[in-house]
Amino acid sequence: MTFLRQPTKAGVRDAAAKVAAILPPSPLIVHRVGAVDVAFKAESLQPVGAFKLRGAWHRLTAIAPEDRAKGVVAFSSGNHAQGVAWAARRLGMPATIVMPSDAPRVKLEATMALGAEVVRYDRATESREKIAAHLAHARGATLVPSFDDPWIIEGQGSAGIEAARQMEQMELGAPRQVVVPCGGGGLAAGIALALPDAQIMVVEPEGWDDMRRSLEAGWIEPVSDGAPPTACDSLQTMRVAERTFDVLSRRGAIGVAVTESEVREAQRWAAARLRLVLEPGGAVALAALLSRRVEPEQGTLAILSGGNTDIERFGDVLAERSGADLSATVG
Amino acid sequence: MTFLRQPTKAGVRDAAAKVAAILPPSPLIVHRVGAVDVAFKAESLQPVGAFKLRGAWHRLTAIAPEDRAKGVVAFSSGNHAQGVAWAARRLGMPATIVMPSDAPRVKLEATMALGAEVVRYDRATESREKIAAHLAHARGATLVPSFDDPWIIEGQGSAGIEAARQMEQMELGAPRQVVVPCGGGGLAAGIALALPDAQIMVVEPEGWDDMRRSLEAGWIEPVSDGAPPTACDSLQTMRVAERTFDVLSRRGAIGVAVTESEVREAQRWAAARLRLVLEPGGAVALAALLSRRVEPEQGTLAILSGGNTDIERFGDVLAERSGADLSATVG
Repeated sequence: MTFLRQPTKAGVRDAAAKVAAILPPSPLIVHRVGAVDVAFKAESLQPVGAFKLRGAWHRLTAIAPEDRAKGVVAFSSGNHAQGVAWAARRLGMPATIVMPSDAPRVKLEATMALGAEVVRYDRATESREKIAAHLAHARGATLVPSFDDPWIIEGQGSAGIEAARQMEQMELGAPRQVVVPCGGGGLAAGIALALPDAQIMVVEPEGWDDMRRSLEAGWIEPVSDGAPPTACDSLQTMRVAERTFDVLSRRGAIGVAVTESEVREAQRWAAARLRLVLEPGGAVALAALLSRRVEPEQGTLAILSGGNTDIERFGDVLAERSGADLSATVG
Repeated sequence: MTFLRQPTKAGVRDAAAKVAAILPPSPLIVHRVGAVDVAFKAESLQPVGAFKLRGAWHRLTAIAPEDRAKGVVAFSSGNHAQGVAWAARRLGMPATIVMPSDAPRVKLEATMALGAEVVRYDRATESREKIAAHLAHARGATLVPSFDDPWIIEGQGSAGIEAARQMEQMELGAPRQVVVPCGGGGLAAGIALALPDAQIMVVEPEGWDDMRRSLEAGWIEPVSDGAPPTACDSLQTMRVAERTFDVLSRRGAIGVAVTESEVREAQRWAAARLRLVLEPGGAVALAALLSRRVEPEQGTLAILSGGNTDIERFGDVLAERSGADLSATVG
């Protein structure tokens, strides 16, 4: 039984201190977009290739010592799975992850390699929520949601605290605009709490831009039936949470949607200019800036949220010739 | 007129302090290879995509104030060109770079984007040394060699000081074995000076392993006529220098050669597991470890020296299916 708890800025600061104690800051790479220097936070270079270990670490370390041996259960198509498995292994806790059978192979295998038990389900016919709840109940394990949880939101927000500190050290000033990928909104809400003075721009793939529509409507609107296919597997959330929506809505966050081809262009740009491998969902904030759906301005921080992608598929994206000039240049 | 000057460990320390004043440390990424954790120094994430700005910065800042306005001249197939252009721009000095017409487009364009004047020559019929010497003489500019220079060697060595500090902070202990790509040997010699207690393993592409043969012979042996083609454009040096050879020879450095397919396998491994884009020459140290031509052992530091590669070509390398299991895992 968890008491009703809201994510807070103090919680984000606490999470940032806990994360800093076990992980070096992820690199902040500065590169020019148009006429301004943009700060890119390379969460793709985290040990699990995504920011998700932040929230997982903050959540799992909050589990009472007497409950740890019973382990944790999570459901995820990939990156949250690896974040939870990584944190659980580090704490010596058993982890069970419910993953869709069609999750990228690279994410399934990486989760197993971290010592987690993986239970697969069929996205079309089974409910991952039910499977996970059943497993957690049967084992007395703690269920760890991927975004609808105060600790998870606070933990992800630690990326914002860290980036602001790095921007200050690099004499770039405070972040004034943060461009952040959005699935369920955990990362975006955490960063909104972390950086109360910045304009938050959340980015989703076209057709999966339910946070954008929800922010415009003023209430939660789920993804429509028959949403188009997207390569952004990590951002395919059918419905955001009250918790994440509330935080972002109160902060006046603005949503934008990017196309699949803009995402591929961003993956190519990141490979050529930042020398980074980004998964499609990890490249949407960059896609928004390159397409000028978000105007790059002084003090812009963009989160490159993950880099877990099957490399043959990534190779195909790179080999596809681009219309734009992709010659590498420096900031 | 330059007095005869030998590169020293004190010079490397001085270079490291100068570099630290203008650049954050490049990321040190830890990942398991076989049964041990290897520390990878991601010089590919430097602003010019390679370690070369270290030596260039140390060299250019040593030019007397009254000579700065006359500028610098360098010859290079790419990464040294960008390093010199970057340092010159930062110091407000004019830079002229002599580059082969067949240098990777990405490197030619990046050098021009940094504001340098690029003079192209034909590798087969013209002498870049003569062209550069003529230009330097005509303009009173300082010639900046790519490896046969004490400041350049010391500057590149700053990567070793930085990596050792990071390994200590991450509680990995001191580097005991350093695996380093070798063209003319500037980086390897600098690191040998920086880390006097580590075994230095220099890695070259097969057929271009003249440093290996020289170290075994005890005198300098150039690359043979008719050396095979290699994708490692940054390591195609016909002859190492007395300066670099002497340092490495005295330190008992050992050379190994890797095949072209081992290099491509290393590029795929780095993309899948480290989420990094590496150019072929930047991946040879990793290739030596993955192929077990160098045995990974506790305290191994491997330099990932550069990431400047035409991305369509890189995409082809990734799309080529590998025999090995390339699923992403974590350390």
